Amino acid sequence: MTISQRRDRLRQRLADAELDAMLVSDLVNVRYLSGFTGSNAALLILAEDETPVLATDGRYRTQAAHQAPDAEVVIERACGPRLAARAAAAGIRRLGFESHVVTVDAFTALTKAVGEACEFVRAAGTVEGLREVKDAGEIALLRLACEAADAALRDLVDQGGLRAGRTEKEVCNELESLMLAHGADGASFETIVATGANSAIPHHRPTDAVLAAGDFVKIDFGALVAGYHSDMTRTFVLAPIADWQRDIYDLVATAQRAGTDALEPGVALKDVDAASRQVIVEAGYGENFGHGLGHGVGLQIHEAPGINAAAAGTLLAGSVVTVEPGVYLPDRGGVRIEDTLVVNKRPELLTRFPKELVII
Amino acid sequence: MTISQRRDRLRQRLADAELDAMLVSDLVNVRYLSGFTGSNAALLILAEDETPVLATDGRYRTQAAHQAPDAEVVIERACGPRLAARAAAAGIRRLGFESHVVTVDAFTALTKAVGEACEFVRAAGTVEGLREVKDAGEIALLRLACEAADAALRDLVDQGGLRAGRTEKEVCNELESLMLAHGADGASFETIVATGANSAIPHHRPTDAVLAAGDFVKIDFGALVAGYHSDMTRTFVLAPIADWQRDIYDLVATAQRAGTDALEPGVALKDVDAASRQVIVEAGYGENFGHGLGHGVGLQIHEAPGINAAAAGTLLAGSVVTVEPGVYLPDRGGVRIEDTLVVNKRPELLTRFPKELVII
Repeated sequence: MTISQRRDRLRQRLADAELDAMLVSDLVNVRYLSGFTGSNAALLILAEDETPVLATDGRYRTQAAHQAPDAEVVIERACGPRLAARAAAAGIRRLGFESHVVTVDAFTALTKAVGEACEFVRAAGTVEGLREVKDAGEIALLRLACEAADAALRDLVDQGGLRAGRTEKEVCNELESLMLAHGADGASFETIVATGANSAIPHHRPTDAVLAAGDFVKIDFGALVAGYHSDMTRTFVLAPIADWQRDIYDLVATAQRAGTDALEPGVALKDVDAASRQVIVEAGYGENFGHGLGHGVGLQIHEAPGINAAAAGTLLAGSVVTVEPGVYLPDRGGVRIEDTLVVNKRPELLTRFPKELVII
Repeated sequence: MTISQRRDRLRQRLADAELDAMLVSDLVNVRYLSGFTGSNAALLILAEDETPVLATDGRYRTQAAHQAPDAEVVIERACGPRLAARAAAAGIRRLGFESHVVTVDAFTALTKAVGEACEFVRAAGTVEGLREVKDAGEIALLRLACEAADAALRDLVDQGGLRAGRTEKEVCNELESLMLAHGADGASFETIVATGANSAIPHHRPTDAVLAAGDFVKIDFGALVAGYHSDMTRTFVLAPIADWQRDIYDLVATAQRAGTDALEPGVALKDVDAASRQVIVEAGYGENFGHGLGHGVGLQIHEAPGINAAAAGTLLAGSVVTVEPGVYLPDRGGVRIEDTLVVNKRPELLTRFPKELVII
C-alpha cells in the first residue's frame, strides 16, 4: 500500500463520520500519512481533495520537500493553528481533530485561529485505527527489526556476554551495540536488563548491579529499523538454577504458548489475555502478573491494539502484537517471555530467538 | 539541592499563584519532582503538605517504592483522574494543572473525576520554569554527558571513522557505540550525520549516502547520562576543501563565538540570538540560517529557555543552553557549530571538543 492509499482509507473514514477534513497533530500519524519525520508538523487531510497540506517550520523546508513530495508544504512554526485557519478558509465546517493528542492550551490556539468558522469534532484514535492493520511494507520492516534483535541477542550469548561479574549496564550497552552492528537504527525503547531480585521489577532500568550465580537475567529490548519497532523479552538463568526458578520459568513459558495459541483474527482481545492469564492464575501466581498480556507494535513501541483484561474489540488480521506474560516475585526474581507476532489464520512469529530455558 | 527542596520551591510558587495544589502530568516533571522514571504516572503536590502523592500502575509498584521513597504511592492506571479525585477529597479548591501537557480528552476525564469540587487553573510551564536553573547535581550529570560525547567524537576521528567511502549510517552507529563505551546510557536524541549536500538539511537523518572527497560532514549528537542530555555539533571537511566551504565555516565559527560571548545572566534571550545572527546576516547569509540560536538542555534535549528572535525573557544564571548557529546552502552543503554551556558570569563550556576547522 502506498502512502496515498493510506490517505484514501482515512478519507473514507472521514466520509463515514461526516467530517469535511481532519487535522492530524500526532507526529507518528503525520509520518504514517505523509512520510514526513520532522519534529514539528501537522497535516490537513480534506475529504474532497487528494493533496494533503503539510505544515512544518523552516528547519525542515528541504526535508519536507524530499519526504512528502506529493504534499503541499506550508512553512510555519505554529503548524496546527495555521492549518486550522487554512481549513476554515477552504470552507470546511466539520473539522476532525485529535482530541487525545491536542493539549488544552493547543486547543485554545486552534479555536482562536478559526473563530466561529469551523466546528471541531473529536476524532481520537481514527488514524491509530488505520495503523492497527499493517501493510506489506510495514511487515517487512518489522521483520527486519525483529531479525536485528534476534541476531544481537544470539551474539551476546555466544560471546559470553551474560557471564557473572558483569553489570546490567555493561550487558545493555553491548546488546545495543550489537543491534546497531546488525543494522538497527537504534534501540526501539529503553533496554531492560534486570538481574537477580531486579528481575522482579517489570520495567527495571539497567544499573551497576552485578550478574551473579543463581540469578535470573531478564532482558526486554528491541531494535528500531526505518521507524519500526521490535519487542522481545527473554529470561536466562546463571547456574545453578533453583527449583522455584525452573517452576516459574516453565509456568510463564506455558502461559506464553497459551497466549500465542489464542491469537486469531476475530477473537476478543480480552479473551487472548485470559487464555494466557488463566494458566498463571490457576498456578496461584495471578497476583504476580500485574500487567496486560500484550500490545500492538509498529511505528510506536506501544500502539493499538492493547491486549488486556479491560480491552474492548477483537484481534484484526494483519495486526502485529506482542504476547508477554510474566511472573514477578518481589525481592526474589521474575520471568517474562515475550514475542512479536503477525496475526493471521496462524500467527507468524517475528522474534525467533529460542524460548527454551537457557542456563548459562 | 535535594528532590524535596525542588518540591519546596514549587510549593512556594503555588502559594504565589494562590493555588492549593498542583497536578503534575508531564512525566519529565514527575521525575524532576519525585525521582520516579516510569512511563505512566502523575504527581499531586499540595501547598500545605510535604508528602507528595505519586500515582502509577501495577507494573511500577516496586520501582515507585524504590525511586520515590518519600512519596505516598497510589496504584492506579488512570493516574490523573485518581489524583484529581484525591485532591477534591482533600478539600482542594484551586488545583493547578499542566494545560500544555494535558490533552483535551484527558482534561475531560479530570473534570469528570472531580465534579464541581475543584476549579482547574492553567499552570503551564510552572515546573519547567523551576527546571530552567540547574542545581549542582544536575550540572555534574550534564558535564558527564558532554564528556562522554567529547570522548566518543575524539575516538571516532582518531580511528579514521570519517574516511571517504563510509556511509552516514556507519558513522552514526560507530559514534553511538563509542558513546556507550564512554559511559553513556544512550544517545540523547537521534544522531545526525549528514555528508555532502545532505549537510544542507539542518535535521537530516543518517542514510546510506557515502562520504566523499570534498564533502562537509556535519555531526549533531549527544549522550544521555542518568536522564541528562548533552548536545553538540561539529562539521568536518573531507579534503580537498573549496574556498566557499572555508568561508562559511569561518563565518559560522565567528557567529558561534559571538553568541557565546553574549551569554550573560540578565541578557534578553532575543539579544543573544541577535548577537550571533547579526554576523551571518551581515555576511549576506541571513536567509540560510532558518532556526533559532539555541535552547536549554537538561532532563530533555529541548527545554527552557528557547534562544531565538521571538523569545521573551532573559537568561538566568545556572541555566544550561546550546549556542548553535548554522549556514545551509541548499544542494551544496551546510555548517553548524554547537556547544552546550552553563550560563554564569562567564559561561562554562561543557562540550570541549575543538572547534577549529578539521580537514580530514
